[in-house]
Amino acid sequence: MDFKEPIKASDLATRFGAVCVGAKNLQITGINEVHRVTDGDLTFCDHPKYYDKAVNSEATAILIDKVTDFPKNKVLLVVKNPFEVFTQLSEEVRAFKAQDTMISPNAKIGAGTRIMPGTFVGEGVVIGKNCLIHPNVTIYDGCKIEDRVIIHSGTVIGADAFYYKRNNGYRKLNSCGTVRIENDVEIGASCTIDRGVTAETVIGAGTKMDNMVQIGHDTVIGKNCLFAAQVGIAGVVNVEDDVILWGQVGVQKDLTIGKGAVVLGQSGLAKSLEGGKTYFGSPVREAKAKMREIALIKQLPEIIERLKK
Amino acid sequence: MDFKEPIKASDLATRFGAVCVGAKNLQITGINEVHRVTDGDLTFCDHPKYYDKAVNSEATAILIDKVTDFPKNKVLLVVKNPFEVFTQLSEEVRAFKAQDTMISPNAKIGAGTRIMPGTFVGEGVVIGKNCLIHPNVTIYDGCKIEDRVIIHSGTVIGADAFYYKRNNGYRKLNSCGTVRIENDVEIGASCTIDRGVTAETVIGAGTKMDNMVQIGHDTVIGKNCLFAAQVGIAGVVNVEDDVILWGQVGVQKDLTIGKGAVVLGQSGLAKSLEGGKTYFGSPVREAKAKMREIALIKQLPEIIERLKK
Amino acid sequence: MDFKEPIKASDLATRFGAVCVGAKNLQITGINEVHRVTDGDLTFCDHPKYYDKAVNSEATAILIDKVTDFPKNKVLLVVKNPFEVFTQLSEEVRAFKAQDTMISPNAKIGAGTRIMPGTFVGEGVVIGKNCLIHPNVTIYDGCKIEDRVIIHSGTVIGADAFYYKRNNGYRKLNSCGTVRIENDVEIGASCTIDRGVTAETVIGAGTKMDNMVQIGHDTVIGKNCLFAAQVGIAGVVNVEDDVILWGQVGVQKDLTIGKGAVVLGQSGLAKSLEGGKTYFGSPVREAKAKMREIALIKQLPEIIERLKK
Repeated sequence: MDFKEPIKASDLATRFGAVCVGAKNLQITGINEVHRVTDGDLTFCDHPKYYDKAVNSEATAILIDKVTDFPKNKVLLVVKNPFEVFTQLSEEVRAFKAQDTMISPNAKIGAGTRIMPGTFVGEGVVIGKNCLIHPNVTIYDGCKIEDRVIIHSGTVIGADAFYYKRNNGYRKLNSCGTVRIENDVEIGASCTIDRGVTAETVIGAGTKMDNMVQIGHDTVIGKNCLFAAQVGIAGVVNVEDDVILWGQVGVQKDLTIGKGAVVLGQSGLAKSLEGGKTYFGSPVREAKAKMREIALIKQLPEIIERLKK
Repeated sequence: MDFKEPIKASDLATRFGAVCVGAKNLQITGINEVHRVTDGDLTFCDHPKYYDKAVNSEATAILIDKVTDFPKNKVLLVVKNPFEVFTQLSEEVRAFKAQDTMISPNAKIGAGTRIMPGTFVGEGVVIGKNCLIHPNVTIYDGCKIEDRVIIHSGTVIGADAFYYKRNNGYRKLNSCGTVRIENDVEIGASCTIDRGVTAETVIGAGTKMDNMVQIGHDTVIGKNCLFAAQVGIAGVVNVEDDVILWGQVGVQKDLTIGKGAVVLGQSGLAKSLEGGKTYFGSPVREAKAKMREIALIKQLPEIIERLKK
Repeated sequence: MDFKEPIKASDLATRFGAVCVGAKNLQITGINEVHRVTDGDLTFCDHPKYYDKAVNSEATAILIDKVTDFPKNKVLLVVKNPFEVFTQLSEEVRAFKAQDTMISPNAKIGAGTRIMPGTFVGEGVVIGKNCLIHPNVTIYDGCKIEDRVIIHSGTVIGADAFYYKRNNGYRKLNSCGTVRIENDVEIGASCTIDRGVTAETVIGAGTKMDNMVQIGHDTVIGKNCLFAAQVGIAGVVNVEDDVILWGQVGVQKDLTIGKGAVVLGQSGLAKSLEGGKTYFGSPVREAKAKMREIALIKQLPEIIERLKK
């Protein structure tokens, strides 16, 4: 997410008592978690294991706890606790205020959109035209919903990312990202779509979700996907267009599901899947291979009996 | 669902510019999706694969995209796009209006029933006697709840079916069916029970559900069933009486679970199950067979070692 | 849960027409289900299978349907239907009243705590300092929330236990227990945490839950646990400190997960787990053994081919 206005790296360093190493005059335009950084962003890194990823990312500036090698045209801001500084910036980018009305006077609601009672619409929410938001939906501050979107009751859009730093218990990273729901999406009852940590969680145009679907922070769903009930997708997942996930499929974080993949019910994904194929199982395999495996296992007693003879 | 009053097949044909073939004078009493049609109904069919099923169903009239063989005493209404016409009729049967009060003045609430705050009760809802509806429940328009029913917070009754026609993306079929919840049912927190596409989703008397149970459109649950938390049942499923489903069981669409069946936790059902037995696994098997299979798999390393020798 | 004031065993017996056998002068301080009884409690038992467990529990008094051997310094209250008497006492301990305001005037809310609109706070709820309760949360009567707790939208705290007596259908045991959420807990969107039947469901300090996590009645979660989305834990489970459960893990009732255990996604637990280890699978095994098993199964076609030769 971007700052209200860009700030020079050296000025940011001064503000947080950071040692500024490298291209000190670069303008920082916003902050981003390392998975979603783009040019102009400040990201953070506090473990040598991730130094390389951070300094070689698209980030312009890196909040870091130690000087390390880094490419030209970047800048390090060296502080004792990068996580704390990043969190503080994050809280400035999303200046959360508890609101006491069900619909914020600063929300923008398009023509023809109907919002039913019991629904909460937070500060700075933008909803397009001809949407239908059923009762008892919650849309946190800052989320964007485009045109002709239908959201069923009980659904929660834009709750915080499940993102903590482990350190004698867990320290929360404030989520300053948002959610963007594109045209013609329908979201079932009691779904949860978390906001990005520092970027957008996106639901692509024309995608349809059944009830109780969970979408983690910073996950980007393509166009015209179909997710059956109780599907759960973790954070930072990339689901390409036309993907079908049947009921209760679970998807781990930080992987990609290729265009047009179909995943059968209750499958569990711990790695990326190529598009255009059908998958099944936990851990998931191509469905044909999995079906052969299941058939073979059923025959095992007989096979072993024969072999014993 | 029935029309307000029956309409003659030929009159309906005229209205939609359909070619009327067969028993043109038959009275059409309502519309129904092919899984739930009864005598008097109009259903629709737009793919040769389903022509046989449609014309041989209980339907009196079939909206279809091409003339095909059909039994006497039926009538075809031939139109270019049966889905669109059916959708239009569906929208007339359920004339949905966004409502601006939490409890519709046209809802009927029985004596002794307590409805707690934050709960939405839609147009035409009927709730019987001595029910307890906890806070923040949502009951969509037209749903029927009988006597002594308890519904816990966050639950959503009567959201739209997850039902689309694929066609360069997905085209929504408006759900004009309802939900009927019989006497003495208890429904846990944050459950979702979808309305039928054109008929009723039914929860049979005395059935008890834990939290986060999902019931799809047009599913009919018998009496005195017990569903543990996070069970998910797709649409058009028939669950007979006294069935027990333990936690996180998933059930695919359009199958039957026989009376008294018990399905252990996390099982996945892709086909119908006979009653009176205990099942386990994904894909599900009889529990005894599955347990033997699991024991055998655990011994595999040893078995293979021996065989190698 | 305790009575307002202790009552002598013989007085309680008189009230319910019970035959009082044993230490009739003992003071009964409250009621508890057998899994959570402590000294002073009355518990109940109506099946010979459980007589031993009941009379040898910590309970001071046992509502029972038949005289049986029991230790000295205990007292039996013999009645025809212990369940009914227990239920009646339970309803007195939790005198539930439907409330017509979103926040009970008898709730206590600490300094710095923000409660957003659409949230229901029941009779006698106590919330500590500097908590943030997002919109459309439901907190049933009597629940206790300590300091700096964050609860996201759609979550339901304190719904009734899923606890019935089977008897020509199911007879509900009124839940008179509560929920206690300790300091620095964060609970995601659309979670459900049921109240204890007669004791407390506890979420230990510093524990963090993602969205759609289900916690059953009387379950006690330790400190600094981490539960990913769609985890489901049944009733009367004991989760020790620092346990990590990844997405969609299911846990059956009445077992223990040892300190520091890690359970990978979609695993299913039907028995207790030792702490300090990593587990996977349904049914769950140690992850290393399960991974070997999975690798072996993949090689099965080849192995059998070879053995046939």
